[in-house]
Amino acid sequence: MASQPISILITGANRGLGLEMVEQILQASQPVKQLFACCRDPDGPQAEALRTLAKKHADVVSIVRLDASDLRSIRRATQRVGAALPPGGLNLLINNAAVLPRGGLQTTSPEDMQSALHTNVLGPANIIKEFLPLLRAAVRAGGRAGMSCRQAAVVNISAFLGSFPSIEETYDFLPAISYRMSKAALNMLTLCASTELKRDGILVAALHPGWVRTDMGTQEADIDARESVEGMLDVVFSLNEKDTGTFLNYKGKVIGW
Amino acid sequence: MASQPISILITGANRGLGLEMVEQILQASQPVKQLFACCRDPDGPQAEALRTLAKKHADVVSIVRLDASDLRSIRRATQRVGAALPPGGLNLLINNAAVLPRGGLQTTSPEDMQSALHTNVLGPANIIKEFLPLLRAAVRAGGRAGMSCRQAAVVNISAFLGSFPSIEETYDFLPAISYRMSKAALNMLTLCASTELKRDGILVAALHPGWVRTDMGTQEADIDARESVEGMLDVVFSLNEKDTGTFLNYKGKVIGW
Repeated sequence: MASQPISILITGANRGLGLEMVEQILQASQPVKQLFACCRDPDGPQAEALRTLAKKHADVVSIVRLDASDLRSIRRATQRVGAALPPGGLNLLINNAAVLPRGGLQTTSPEDMQSALHTNVLGPANIIKEFLPLLRAAVRAGGRAGMSCRQAAVVNISAFLGSFPSIEETYDFLPAISYRMSKAALNMLTLCASTELKRDGILVAALHPGWVRTDMGTQEADIDARESVEGMLDVVFSLNEKDTGTFLNYKGKVIGW
Repeated sequence: MASQPISILITGANRGLGLEMVEQILQASQPVKQLFACCRDPDGPQAEALRTLAKKHADVVSIVRLDASDLRSIRRATQRVGAALPPGGLNLLINNAAVLPRGGLQTTSPEDMQSALHTNVLGPANIIKEFLPLLRAAVRAGGRAGMSCRQAAVVNISAFLGSFPSIEETYDFLPAISYRMSKAALNMLTLCASTELKRDGILVAALHPGWVRTDMGTQEADIDARESVEGMLDVVFSLNEKDTGTFLNYKGKVIGW
């Protein structure tokens, strides 16, 4: 872990890849000082494992209620995180929360179509925008040249399924049209935001976790969450200015949009 | 005009490129039999030119109320068009209606961000889905091999601004982040729908109109609406099965996603 951030926020942190990220970050030889683990329902049964983890690492982990599809919820979370952070700001924001409707054009309901765009696209866009002051504070506090997640970085968890070259080989197997549309839009958000935030010294990149055995990825997938997250964290902690505006997989390989 | 359809539906037909398409289609040497010109407010002041045109060509043009951001409105329009069509179905659906918020990440309101995704992405997705039975009827009635807009085709009016390669050279000049995200998602919808609907014989393509002097494109743009639409209609009426799933400009040149 080349360049450990001091503070990290992860959305969708109660299960799957998000929960695994929290676990591995806490196990690192140089753990972070503050880890904001966000989820929609911190008190619900789906957040039990995260609550256990947070209790064990109460000095580092704060569980924050955040529903990516709800702007008011995002704004409340921003206030709460801002109040809990030292002037050092937020070094690393990981937009991980997402939904995956599996159907094609003809089998996806209008509600699922909308939910994919709201949670997977509007969510990250609003979250980046609302957390910008805290990311900027981290750049000021860092006071170093160059870009990294030790300064300030946004990592959007995207997916190979959202890349145009993937359609020919994967569409028949898993249409997931609304998910693909949302990830294409998220990738565009990544590239645009990286361009816009370059002058602020904030790095923005998209990451493909691999096809992972989680609730979302099913048990047929290639790799387990541990391998995916080990790879992703290695990549994230090694990001520098040449990586801003790129789409990388969990091994650090560039993926075509 | 190589392969004229019998029936066409155009959304956002009351102004800009949509209105110009209606005009040029009516001026063609072999005009279509039925042209459904859709807009949000057929009775409003912004539809006056369209109403005049429709009065002059009352045997061909029907103005249909359709708000692409409202599923119920789309469903009502589908029923109305279905009732007015002969069993020959709908040959060509042109998703043209769109909004263009111009701001970047930091200057686009959450409302504009949502509006861009609802009108420019959910709209076309729901419209294609709802009109599928009428497009399928056209394939059955056409009874020919191959794909074309004489059989059944969907053309999504996209934009070069929504392509990933465009960002580097155009972002500083016109951020339009929500528009770009929406067009990237629309392009993904195009590619996915083309893959899914190939077996039904329905062609799906995305089109870039050029940078056009309209209210949307401003007066600084490269070409006028006439030139853009002449080019686009030539391209549309020449589409065949090799073009399904592609992104073409108004001169017929392939654009990278």
